[in-house]
Amino acid sequence: MSLSALFPMFLGVFGLGGAFYLYKEVKKYPGGEDKIARIAEQIHLGAMVFMRREYKILGIFCAVVLFLILISDLGWKTALSFLIGAFTSALAGYIGMYTATQANVRTAVAASTEGVSSALTVAFFGGSIMGLTVASMGLLGLGFLYLIFGGNPETAHVIHGFGMGASSVALFSRVGGGIFTKSADVGADLVGKIEAGIPEDDPRNPGVIADNVGDNVGDVAGMGSDIFESYCGSIIATIALASTMAATTLTQLNASQDQLMFLPLVLASFGLICSMIGIFIVKQSANKSPEVALRAGTIGSSVLFIFIALLLIAVMGISLKVWGSVLVGAVGGIIIGLVTEYYTSGAPVLKVAKAGETGPATVMIAGLSVGMQSVVIPVLTICGIILISSNLSGLYGVAISAVGMLATVGITMAIDAYGPVADNAGGIAEMGGMGKETREITDSLDELGNTTAAIGKGFAIGAAALAALAIISAFIETISHHQQDFSLQINDPLVLAGMFLGGIFPFLISAITMNAVGEAAFDMIKEIRRQFRDIPGLLEGTAEPDTERCVDIATTAALKRMVLPGILAVFSPVVVGFLLGPEALGGMLGGALICCVLLALTMANAGGVWDNAKKHVEKGNLGGKGSETHKAVVVGDTVGDPFKDTSGPAMNILINVMAIVSLVIAPLLV
Amino acid sequence: MSLSALFPMFLGVFGLGGAFYLYKEVKKYPGGEDKIARIAEQIHLGAMVFMRREYKILGIFCAVVLFLILISDLGWKTALSFLIGAFTSALAGYIGMYTATQANVRTAVAASTEGVSSALTVAFFGGSIMGLTVASMGLLGLGFLYLIFGGNPETAHVIHGFGMGASSVALFSRVGGGIFTKSADVGADLVGKIEAGIPEDDPRNPGVIADNVGDNVGDVAGMGSDIFESYCGSIIATIALASTMAATTLTQLNASQDQLMFLPLVLASFGLICSMIGIFIVKQSANKSPEVALRAGTIGSSVLFIFIALLLIAVMGISLKVWGSVLVGAVGGIIIGLVTEYYTSGAPVLKVAKAGETGPATVMIAGLSVGMQSVVIPVLTICGIILISSNLSGLYGVAISAVGMLATVGITMAIDAYGPVADNAGGIAEMGGMGKETREITDSLDELGNTTAAIGKGFAIGAAALAALAIISAFIETISHHQQDFSLQINDPLVLAGMFLGGIFPFLISAITMNAVGEAAFDMIKEIRRQFRDIPGLLEGTAEPDTERCVDIATTAALKRMVLPGILAVFSPVVVGFLLGPEALGGMLGGALICCVLLALTMANAGGVWDNAKKHVEKGNLGGKGSETHKAVVVGDTVGDPFKDTSGPAMNILINVMAIVSLVIAPLLV
Repeated sequence: MSLSALFPMFLGVFGLGGAFYLYKEVKKYPGGEDKIARIAEQIHLGAMVFMRREYKILGIFCAVVLFLILISDLGWKTALSFLIGAFTSALAGYIGMYTATQANVRTAVAASTEGVSSALTVAFFGGSIMGLTVASMGLLGLGFLYLIFGGNPETAHVIHGFGMGASSVALFSRVGGGIFTKSADVGADLVGKIEAGIPEDDPRNPGVIADNVGDNVGDVAGMGSDIFESYCGSIIATIALASTMAATTLTQLNASQDQLMFLPLVLASFGLICSMIGIFIVKQSANKSPEVALRAGTIGSSVLFIFIALLLIAVMGISLKVWGSVLVGAVGGIIIGLVTEYYTSGAPVLKVAKAGETGPATVMIAGLSVGMQSVVIPVLTICGIILISSNLSGLYGVAISAVGMLATVGITMAIDAYGPVADNAGGIAEMGGMGKETREITDSLDELGNTTAAIGKGFAIGAAALAALAIISAFIETISHHQQDFSLQINDPLVLAGMFLGGIFPFLISAITMNAVGEAAFDMIKEIRRQFRDIPGLLEGTAEPDTERCVDIATTAALKRMVLPGILAVFSPVVVGFLLGPEALGGMLGGALICCVLLALTMANAGGVWDNAKKHVEKGNLGGKGSETHKAVVVGDTVGDPFKDTSGPAMNILINVMAIVSLVIAPLLV
Repeated sequence: MSLSALFPMFLGVFGLGGAFYLYKEVKKYPGGEDKIARIAEQIHLGAMVFMRREYKILGIFCAVVLFLILISDLGWKTALSFLIGAFTSALAGYIGMYTATQANVRTAVAASTEGVSSALTVAFFGGSIMGLTVASMGLLGLGFLYLIFGGNPETAHVIHGFGMGASSVALFSRVGGGIFTKSADVGADLVGKIEAGIPEDDPRNPGVIADNVGDNVGDVAGMGSDIFESYCGSIIATIALASTMAATTLTQLNASQDQLMFLPLVLASFGLICSMIGIFIVKQSANKSPEVALRAGTIGSSVLFIFIALLLIAVMGISLKVWGSVLVGAVGGIIIGLVTEYYTSGAPVLKVAKAGETGPATVMIAGLSVGMQSVVIPVLTICGIILISSNLSGLYGVAISAVGMLATVGITMAIDAYGPVADNAGGIAEMGGMGKETREITDSLDELGNTTAAIGKGFAIGAAALAALAIISAFIETISHHQQDFSLQINDPLVLAGMFLGGIFPFLISAITMNAVGEAAFDMIKEIRRQFRDIPGLLEGTAEPDTERCVDIATTAALKRMVLPGILAVFSPVVVGFLLGPEALGGMLGGALICCVLLALTMANAGGVWDNAKKHVEKGNLGGKGSETHKAVVVGDTVGDPFKDTSGPAMNILINVMAIVSLVIAPLLV
């Protein structure tokens, strides 16, 4: 299968080509002139400066981990794998951010000169570049490693290093980006809107560039690395489970070990093709309503993928039970996304907004209660996926269902990253004074982006949960492979203590990241107040704010505060694994998994419902802007910001980092 | 051992005698006259009416469960056990409430006529009656059942029914009481303090009697049943684990099966004696500062208990490793209590209060972050208890450590129930216009009560966690006893899906109970507003409010809304156990345990820190009452109310109900 083994890498290159083509298309649109161009340049530069400084810290961190891997018994192959994983993840984030900060201004200009259809195309292409890059980089990196190490079950484990590299970078990007974006957002809003009484995205506000940089840093790069590591994690875990599979199971699934190890890469490759077709569908439907266009693209590519997977598995002669698992995962992802949409834009929004009539306390209670309630159906869905897919094809089934959910990541990520591009376009239109009509177009695109972002968040949680589950299964199988009597019984005190330990981390990391946003926002508030006070003529519009300084402060604050959570996540499995043994570590992963998923859903959906309740009131309902109800729902939104954009998303990566680090060190623990 | 088997029952009777003696002592103090007596009578009657109506619903529920037990294969012995458990739990709650509503007014009168020392004595005696009743009823009921069924390992399992009865009553009391107390509190405060601008506990407020009734219903009866079921649960689980213990383990612990089965009852009996001595110590030190007196009593009885346990275990010839487990549990309980005290009265309070300067949103974030952070040390302590005690004496060690933590429950519960008595005394003093000096004394007692209540809450969570853990272990052992190949491996898809399922319930029940408080408070608000509007002269003080109507509304609202969470908790293990099997049920208990403990700690401590941050500002700090900071911290307190007094405490019982129901149905699942 020497030639077919090149297929994933070939698809990776092909996907990157597609991304480059889209980039050229985006660049064809005009980038604005004078003031508009200058604002766009400031956002672009701010984002790039943040990335560069972040990557410096990441570089140091990776060097330390690399050193530790090399002096351990894991060997240079794992070290190489780690490096490639970290590098591809970082590169995908960089490319995505670079192009998103080119697409934002072009979306604004297109909205002003050509109308909604062109604006949608540019914004969506901007997001699609991120989507295609994520999928392609994953295929390229994993395809390469599979080619040199993966064919042989004995060396397949070195690929785990790739996941660890990708996850480490993802964790720092997500946490750092999350802190940056929310500190800038909260800081700019509190001083600008509330204290100085100027509108959102007003160019006089020194924090407003930082706020727009934050959208890219947090919502594009952060989300991209999040999805990237789930995507790669699920593929890696599936390979790992296949490589330790017993002969009887192989017979049951009517497949060879090689076939099952290679299957996730093939599925992902075809998934990329389906995503590209989906992107094409969106482009073709761009003259219809944006909502219809985006939906046609996603559903189209999912349905197509399911059929192609069926054909593929049938042609390979593998039992169709495996396809059943893929199907369950793909459908499950859609269900979780839709439930998220309901909770953050359906009846619950009206309920939370209504609670604003009795003040901020009832808004808080109602929103928290919606968030907690919203876990039920997604978690039941996850249970369903676990039970059905494992019933069809064992633990391998659980892992391949995660691949099924994530295979069309190209388009899912595209639709998700489209949101912040449209949001930024709105910011640029406002700051550049591009007029009401332009702003209306960008607003409508932005609103749709919020809905797709909510679906994307739900999907990301589901995908992260399944990927982590697959990696944890692979960890357990790896240990069992080397140590026949290994078992993770809940009534074993070590496992039990491990489960409690694991539960601590999601709560602790949430607390730390929420605090970090508060502190970083405080730094920001002080600086913006200082500029309003010290720069003469700023509020009158005759002087320019020092926006760079604000970007710098948000950058420094975010980078400083991302280190502790990152180190806790990466090193806790190592400490527990070596001190208390693999039983406690296995228990810890189980406890952390459950709590991460539940907290992630609660925080994402509480944050989402608060955000939309505020928007509902701001549209003029229940008293509209400036009313007491409005003030109450603004409090909810402010609490929701770190919930949904910092702490909540950190949960996805936390559990995956803990799981993949455990999988990497597994051979050392037996 | 026929005579010694009577010992627990004898101690139970002795303890009840002690409680009766204390009741007589309390009754010696004058009960006030005229207006004072009338207010006290209203509170007393309101509480009794609530209890009677609650017990009617409980009666129906118990009849249904009884019927189900009888038609199942569990048999009449388990049914009898269930009945006794439910009856003793209900009776303990009734006695405690009855006497607490006698002690409250006598505390107020003693404060006004005799000073702080007498007031402390009366309030503390009021709490002690509850404490002694809880411990005595447990010993009496369990001692009786042990006498007739427990001596034989074959019939020992019928005792589990007792735990199920106790837990079911506890769940309804805790949830119903929690909804009652907070809806009355929030309703009375919102309309009275904020809308009408009259002080707290003002007699013109129609909701104020309901508010004071709520303190008894929620904080005395609810807390009592909570502790009662943990107390009995830990004893039952220890008996169960001993009854299924392998011969080799018995040899290692140098004990006979009879000895190990009887040990928890003996320890609890001596614990009751130590509690009574502790109560005596408090009485003797009442002329010192109240804080010193209460602390001397608790620490004195704990230390005494640890020594008596050492002697006892040495005399019985059992390995001292078992004593080590008891010691670890007792010390662990103290650590968890002290950590709770730190988080709800130390530096975090200042931090949350300070966050009020930037508005309610930052108060929310800071409080939630404190709550989430506060899980770390208590959960690490639980991990430590699990690892050390099981290392010393296996799973039996974990269970007996829970008994060690709970043995001196008489005094712990006394100190905890003292708080609401003092709180009520303050309310009566205010409503009855007993003057500033009296109010100052009751305030100082109340403030101390808040601290002891915080410690008590931490202790209750730790105890509930360990008790549930012990019951879950007993469940697993029971299944394994009948089905040799039973195992609960985390990587078994059924177990895994069960763990996810289990995680849903704490979040769902929290959401439901938080909503319930909001809705019930809304009913209350409407009624109080109506009375202010429709009763002429009410605000001027020339007409009487219809307080009974408010009590009735809170009662109806609470009773209606306690049913769903109760039914979910009791029947979910049955449904999962029979539909998905014991593996999924075991996983579900594991997942629910972790999440219940973490949420309970988070909500209790976030609620506590918000409460005290508000009090800190109200003492004149950071702008004091009426400032913007004050308004911000009031929002935190309002959100914290259902957190710490409704949803949070419900977690303790939720996990215990799920665990004990599983243990009861275990024989049917194999």
